[in-house]
Amino acid sequence: MGADSPTSSVPAIAADHPGVAELFAVLAYGEISAFYRLAEDARMAPTLQGRVALASMAAAEMGHFETLHRALTDRGIEVYAAMDPFVRALDAYHASTDPSTWLESLVKAYVGDGIAADFYLEIAHSLDPTVGGIVREVLAEVGHSEFVVQEVRAAVAASKSEKDRLMLWGRRLLGEAITQAQFVLARREDLTDLVMTATGSLNGVAALFDNMQAKHAERMAVLGLV
Amino acid sequence: MGADSPTSSVPAIAADHPGVAELFAVLAYGEISAFYRLAEDARMAPTLQGRVALASMAAAEMGHFETLHRALTDRGIEVYAAMDPFVRALDAYHASTDPSTWLESLVKAYVGDGIAADFYLEIAHSLDPTVGGIVREVLAEVGHSEFVVQEVRAAVAASKSEKDRLMLWGRRLLGEAITQAQFVLARREDLTDLVMTATGSLNGVAALFDNMQAKHAERMAVLGLV
Repeated sequence: MGADSPTSSVPAIAADHPGVAELFAVLAYGEISAFYRLAEDARMAPTLQGRVALASMAAAEMGHFETLHRALTDRGIEVYAAMDPFVRALDAYHASTDPSTWLESLVKAYVGDGIAADFYLEIAHSLDPTVGGIVREVLAEVGHSEFVVQEVRAAVAASKSEKDRLMLWGRRLLGEAITQAQFVLARREDLTDLVMTATGSLNGVAALFDNMQAKHAERMAVLGLV
Repeated sequence: MGADSPTSSVPAIAADHPGVAELFAVLAYGEISAFYRLAEDARMAPTLQGRVALASMAAAEMGHFETLHRALTDRGIEVYAAMDPFVRALDAYHASTDPSTWLESLVKAYVGDGIAADFYLEIAHSLDPTVGGIVREVLAEVGHSEFVVQEVRAAVAASKSEKDRLMLWGRRLLGEAITQAQFVLARREDLTDLVMTATGSLNGVAALFDNMQAKHAERMAVLGLV
């Protein structure tokens, strides 16, 4: 691991760092917006099995929201006021990556969740264990991804043009996610301070985005998009 | 309790009664359609709190679906094939009671779920305990109804015309639910046999619908709709 690696002996971030509440709040609104995105995308499902798979993923997101709601309330934070600054950026991400086909929605559910999880998990290393534990808990796989992998792999194995389209789609998801993450970081001082402390330096932030790109490529490969 | 009461010393229905799988299947599709109805109605929510309340109720429905999925799979039943005969009636119920306002969607979430629960719980008395336990588990209150009660009570206390409209709406929900229940019973022999056995007689079925009407009136009163 290089000196710039986000995981290299960075000092732990205390549980009362003011960015922690912002971190929980952005995660919390992320769960709600993921819930509604999955529920809406499920309309495109060609089968009842597909609808159920997305509904189950959506339901798991709400379980994670409850965890974050509790964590914020335990800190005396009003949950809805805390989430408010993040509504615009997350809504913008979803609006700019609105799937137009069932396969696009599956790739988004799998790849989009993965990008977000990478970002937060890289930071989690440096958090006080009680805080890091909550972050890891709410980023745990929501399950049913096996269904997504099988559907997408089968479709792209059968159609070169579908594969090309979905590879572009995956690149767009990553690009929009990073754009919105930077937008949030530029506006929330406490959260930015937390991320900078977690990654150690500006170079560390760059390394974090590089790592996210590498993991994104791995996930795309799992879907047969390589 | 009269001789026709559905709960009076009716013999227990064995766990292997063929109607049990149909009962689980109609409950399972009910959970899925409730999930999507709640997720869709939440678009009308005037606040993020309202959206979250409906999302949490929707998520709880999927938890119940998982329970029924397991119960059917344990019996060697293919879940999606088993649900298929009930898709039309439940979709028809939701299509005929599509809320046009946020308050209508709240009343539907509260009153509609209650009507269904009454029907199944009246039958649960007569089921083999392992089967009855599953039915009771998946009909447990999905929570967050306190939010619904407060919102609706405040709105109808403030507006007589809103109250009149929602009282008519509640009556329509009951009517449509009973219509669709009768439609299902007319077409599914095993389930009908189970309901007839549970209620003891045709008079028992009539008494069951009378009980549902009485409990519906109680629930409307809780919402201030009296």
